[in-house]
Amino acid sequence: MAKTSNKVRMGMVGGGQGAFIGNIHRMAAFLDGKIELVAGAFSSNHDNCLLTGHMLGIEPTRCYASYQQMFEAEAKLPAEQRIQFVSVVTPNHLHFPVSKCALEHGFHVLSDKPATMDLHQVLELEKIVTSQQKLYGLTHTYTGYPMVKEACEQVAAGALGDVVKIIVEYSQGWLAETTNEENKQASWRLDPKRAGASCCMGDIGVHAANLAEYVSGLKITELCADLTSVVAGRVLDDDGTVLLKFNNGAKGVLIASQISVGEENNLSIRVYGTKASFEWRQEEPNSLIKKYNNQPREIIRAGVGTLAANTNAYLRTPAGHPEGYIEAFANIYLQFINQIIALEQQSDSDISELAPDIEQAIRGMAFIENVVEASKQQTKWQPFKLTVNSEGQI
Amino acid sequence: MAKTSNKVRMGMVGGGQGAFIGNIHRMAAFLDGKIELVAGAFSSNHDNCLLTGHMLGIEPTRCYASYQQMFEAEAKLPAEQRIQFVSVVTPNHLHFPVSKCALEHGFHVLSDKPATMDLHQVLELEKIVTSQQKLYGLTHTYTGYPMVKEACEQVAAGALGDVVKIIVEYSQGWLAETTNEENKQASWRLDPKRAGASCCMGDIGVHAANLAEYVSGLKITELCADLTSVVAGRVLDDDGTVLLKFNNGAKGVLIASQISVGEENNLSIRVYGTKASFEWRQEEPNSLIKKYNNQPREIIRAGVGTLAANTNAYLRTPAGHPEGYIEAFANIYLQFINQIIALEQQSDSDISELAPDIEQAIRGMAFIENVVEASKQQTKWQPFKLTVNSEGQI
Amino acid sequence: MAKTSNKVRMGMVGGGQGAFIGNIHRMAAFLDGKIELVAGAFSSNHDNCLLTGHMLGIEPTRCYASYQQMFEAEAKLPAEQRIQFVSVVTPNHLHFPVSKCALEHGFHVLSDKPATMDLHQVLELEKIVTSQQKLYGLTHTYTGYPMVKEACEQVAAGALGDVVKIIVEYSQGWLAETTNEENKQASWRLDPKRAGASCCMGDIGVHAANLAEYVSGLKITELCADLTSVVAGRVLDDDGTVLLKFNNGAKGVLIASQISVGEENNLSIRVYGTKASFEWRQEEPNSLIKKYNNQPREIIRAGVGTLAANTNAYLRTPAGHPEGYIEAFANIYLQFINQIIALEQQSDSDISELAPDIEQAIRGMAFIENVVEASKQQTKWQPFKLTVNSEGQI
Amino acid sequence: MAKTSNKVRMGMVGGGQGAFIGNIHRMAAFLDGKIELVAGAFSSNHDNCLLTGHMLGIEPTRCYASYQQMFEAEAKLPAEQRIQFVSVVTPNHLHFPVSKCALEHGFHVLSDKPATMDLHQVLELEKIVTSQQKLYGLTHTYTGYPMVKEACEQVAAGALGDVVKIIVEYSQGWLAETTNEENKQASWRLDPKRAGASCCMGDIGVHAANLAEYVSGLKITELCADLTSVVAGRVLDDDGTVLLKFNNGAKGVLIASQISVGEENNLSIRVYGTKASFEWRQEEPNSLIKKYNNQPREIIRAGVGTLAANTNAYLRTPAGHPEGYIEAFANIYLQFINQIIALEQQSDSDISELAPDIEQAIRGMAFIENVVEASKQQTKWQPFKLTVNSEGQI
Repeated sequence: MAKTSNKVRMGMVGGGQGAFIGNIHRMAAFLDGKIELVAGAFSSNHDNCLLTGHMLGIEPTRCYASYQQMFEAEAKLPAEQRIQFVSVVTPNHLHFPVSKCALEHGFHVLSDKPATMDLHQVLELEKIVTSQQKLYGLTHTYTGYPMVKEACEQVAAGALGDVVKIIVEYSQGWLAETTNEENKQASWRLDPKRAGASCCMGDIGVHAANLAEYVSGLKITELCADLTSVVAGRVLDDDGTVLLKFNNGAKGVLIASQISVGEENNLSIRVYGTKASFEWRQEEPNSLIKKYNNQPREIIRAGVGTLAANTNAYLRTPAGHPEGYIEAFANIYLQFINQIIALEQQSDSDISELAPDIEQAIRGMAFIENVVEASKQQTKWQPFKLTVNSEGQI
Repeated sequence: MAKTSNKVRMGMVGGGQGAFIGNIHRMAAFLDGKIELVAGAFSSNHDNCLLTGHMLGIEPTRCYASYQQMFEAEAKLPAEQRIQFVSVVTPNHLHFPVSKCALEHGFHVLSDKPATMDLHQVLELEKIVTSQQKLYGLTHTYTGYPMVKEACEQVAAGALGDVVKIIVEYSQGWLAETTNEENKQASWRLDPKRAGASCCMGDIGVHAANLAEYVSGLKITELCADLTSVVAGRVLDDDGTVLLKFNNGAKGVLIASQISVGEENNLSIRVYGTKASFEWRQEEPNSLIKKYNNQPREIIRAGVGTLAANTNAYLRTPAGHPEGYIEAFANIYLQFINQIIALEQQSDSDISELAPDIEQAIRGMAFIENVVEASKQQTKWQPFKLTVNSEGQI
Repeated sequence: MAKTSNKVRMGMVGGGQGAFIGNIHRMAAFLDGKIELVAGAFSSNHDNCLLTGHMLGIEPTRCYASYQQMFEAEAKLPAEQRIQFVSVVTPNHLHFPVSKCALEHGFHVLSDKPATMDLHQVLELEKIVTSQQKLYGLTHTYTGYPMVKEACEQVAAGALGDVVKIIVEYSQGWLAETTNEENKQASWRLDPKRAGASCCMGDIGVHAANLAEYVSGLKITELCADLTSVVAGRVLDDDGTVLLKFNNGAKGVLIASQISVGEENNLSIRVYGTKASFEWRQEEPNSLIKKYNNQPREIIRAGVGTLAANTNAYLRTPAGHPEGYIEAFANIYLQFINQIIALEQQSDSDISELAPDIEQAIRGMAFIENVVEASKQQTKWQPFKLTVNSEGQI
Repeated sequence: MAKTSNKVRMGMVGGGQGAFIGNIHRMAAFLDGKIELVAGAFSSNHDNCLLTGHMLGIEPTRCYASYQQMFEAEAKLPAEQRIQFVSVVTPNHLHFPVSKCALEHGFHVLSDKPATMDLHQVLELEKIVTSQQKLYGLTHTYTGYPMVKEACEQVAAGALGDVVKIIVEYSQGWLAETTNEENKQASWRLDPKRAGASCCMGDIGVHAANLAEYVSGLKITELCADLTSVVAGRVLDDDGTVLLKFNNGAKGVLIASQISVGEENNLSIRVYGTKASFEWRQEEPNSLIKKYNNQPREIIRAGVGTLAANTNAYLRTPAGHPEGYIEAFANIYLQFINQIIALEQQSDSDISELAPDIEQAIRGMAFIENVVEASKQQTKWQPFKLTVNSEGQI
């Protein structure tokens, strides 16, 4: 049977039955009908892998026992059949080895975040990405929201004047209850061996930092951090606040928490400029509030009026038909496969913007390590470091 | 190559390049990875059809020049290859002939609404559905929202006491401007030959009526209608209000408009009971507000606390990760393919609830005709009729 | 003792201990420090009257046993001591005789609404107002909100283009429970002898109608009404909907209810024009939402940016310091005493706008009677009548 | 003429024509009709003083040229005529000398905040309050809001479990523009000689700190501060963030800003407990949001259902009739005169709660000085000190 599809072929590592984020990735990948999932190493349990593959309509021969096996076998398939990129949706501690292995076998990688377990690893990863000349993307989902893109575009165009202050917050409540620690989602996040140096900052604080830098176009240069383990007995932080200085002199406050009872997924950002300000809340993502000192507030709405080209490129529905988290996630996938198509097929596919890449991966890991380190210091302000010493410490 | 997929095979009529609703249907169908689009008669323009098919990865041989051709050809394919159901996403006037033809060729039908051009046709359609013993579903999208289901379940369980009043509104503003009439979306909606007896009530008022009956579990029995063509020169209504009586004696107000400047897709419903009341707004669909006279209002949120089983069955993300219109649409598809699987494969697939079906299709067409007729009457209240006379009039 | 105050001297009829609205009127009158309450017939129970007067710091000799006695006695006092106007805060059925008596003794009258028990009485009252050449005002409180004034001013200036549709709603829930009928506030409202021809429309629907005419500058010309007594056993309506036609051809929907469980004092208005639209909600009165089809919504806020002069004249606090119901009420008092000062002292006091007056009183009583009458009719549309026949019927 | 009023007699220092806060104080004092303004030293300009007095209906003989003169003269009047308390509404630098002088002449003092120019002064003031055995109150307005009181009462009753985190924010935008500095309100706030050691923290940050301690019942014990002068050339801070530790181990974040463009008077507080959390926003003050992890959010509304006695005592209107800033201010006045009545008349007046007093005044001044000092330090955390050394420094 002749190949008729021009869909991009994806393999997946992780995401077996019972996994949460794997299913989100798949919905994001499937939404636009441009990606075909053709292979997977969904679970270290091969039965789970086969079952998952069956439910997804994947040939059993391409449901692999391990990611290593998958990359080896797929690399041997004809170019027009083999997977083009790998979606990495394992627990955190496997992101690095899986991504490394995939890149080394010649596959592009789109990884769930965080990219690696520490800054040292991500710097290693950067070398591999560079040497392999393959694409690397990171699903910093929240930058996929169209109204976040609108804010980013308007800030870049000077609509706020100079940015002078950023308040970014990511508060959740689900780790307030100790009984939750027994559940699957909680247990690995609170285990340093699987989660890395931080729970709250590594899981969600890093999204907030990424969002602040993305929207403002600024870079964090110094920070003052205070992390807390609110629930007794925890080794890792479940709450924290970070004061920030940015490269243009603006200041910021980053609040992250997993013990703020009653908060669901309360990610919000406010960017204050000399002329106007933006406010965006993830739980009502289709509105972007623009505030002025001496004129009415504006509610900029998805699909209404003139928006930036890079906003419109990522909207799927007309005004008033709300889009949400899965659509934002799907936008990261869209960005990434557009890059693949442009690279592999030399097509004129519209790459309006790159997906979050290795640079953002590095800054994210650096953020986590810098915050953990700064929180231990008596001195208020610490520089934001992007390098490690010979012991792999920042 | 052996068939490895257990996905449900779908054909589509309509939805070529440039069509709006076809793409929405496809995203809804693709989202969960359980439906495979394998054939289509996407456009009466065959080049468009082939192009659309190519972009969707469909074999050219299954990109058909007409729906008749598709049903004939597909019916001849082996059972395990041929389409199992047809998604009908043509302009309104083709919904009936396409659905009829599909059913008569042995295919289940999931149709965009309205089901037909008039009540007479839908009663015809009912006969065919019955005689063919095939499934018929209608994409009354808004009942696919999980929090609408939660409201429905709680009303049925008596959480509001007796329902005494319903206010349902569906206001848009996009037809306020006459220049819009030149655009594709507007032109057919305002043309009686393609849209039927009503523009505003047929396009959106019927959704509001469906939502009111769905959430309350009640049936409209009498109505008083006032339709208006606000923009000069229009033959069909672009605005209207309908007073309602329900079968339990409750009263209702239904407001629909396409000329309410600044309204996007403002569908909302409030159901007032003797003990408590519900308020839901489509533009913020993940919250359901429950009001009491002597205790705090509750904001029931998707993913938070104990929700009805039929609500949870249609949620894809954890609390605070907003779902939207496409997910609601996808829920209608999910319901429908679950029915197909249960019927065809005698599997134990969970059919928590049927998709909107021929009964709702009939009530919808009856609503439109009753409203148009009642609006012409001098007498205030008119009975809600579900039958036509020998001339096909209600 | 020399007169030292330039405050306006007020007498009050009604408002003894236990009364609700009397206290609201007093706070409204006192707020700006420009009105002095110097006399009262607060209760038909003289002990209550004296006690109320004592608590308010009024001389016992000016705490009168009856309103007739008050007007007679006050009229004999020197001009610089006697009351200048009377605040009428009795139950509905006394509004007319008290107002009539006050006017006939030469006092201006500011009356709680409704002005009288029926249209016949208010037309009588109009004659007295005219013949006495005294001021008559009516506390249609909601027109006292600054952002309502802003909407009114902008509509008048053409900011919305032509008004084509108005949706006004006033929903409460407190009369849903039958046990409430035993309480003082409920019992008289549900008694035709004390409340007049309507409960819901007389108590709150008339406010909604007044607000619609005030903001839009239009007049109701026809209506279609449907009143209901939702709670069994009631003689008067506790819920109703009225379809409206206005003198420019615009249509409207007026919804009023006292049995909508969980609604507090949910008065809202939306005015749709050909260019833009307004939305205002009494429960968040400091914001006025302006909607457009092709540009961001605006949240016009009290105290922010350039507002109409007639808006600014009635604001007391800077932006972000919320004002509420008492301040709106106080604005009616301010308007009225500014009229008194202008009339009596020929001062150059700024009369930016008249308080609601006898014309609005007449239209209000006509609204109630027209609605009650139209609700009884089988014919859909009825003309809005402002006159009575020889039997006192509209 | 016999004394007929049982109103409490007030004198005022400051608040002449052109002053903003004086008028707010007067509206707050007048609202309930229980306070009589009988004397004033409204301005250092005697013509302004007389004019203000005339407009307020005060005898010219009691419009004094200076506060010293007023206190001396009033002290000589008969007890039943002389002022009972003084409202101090001057610029900041006069709060201390006026309050001191008033107390020493035997008058109770209700002062606008901050109490003094520094901690040293307020500790002096405390000695005078104690020695004179007079009442001292401070208008920390925001604790006057009924829903703030409800939060406070519920926290005290354990409704949230243990408080673990507090986020309090007070953001304004009006000082973002340098041209504003020329206006009267801005100029003294930015002048260290008239405003004290801080602009932003002294003017509004101190309200946020007071609100956090009031609602939570906790005390700040340590802080980490970062103040900024965002607008070039300013000596004092116009923006700042403070990390907090409380006496139960809870942590907090306090954000204050006067340069956040588009923010009006955005004071909000969130108190997170182990069982539930509260959120309150000053710009929508009649709602208190209570959040849970596993049940619907509750919107606790003024006037709805069962509220704490201390909440109900400060509500003036029924549910849905919004109260605002002036009413909150008036509640501070009510608390204070109830204390006066209880003290002077040994009456059984209901003192449900004391107005903010000298202890809160001390903590407020300490907060300002501690924050300014901590902001200069390199070391992250500083203890919160309530005492000064021999040089008057903390």
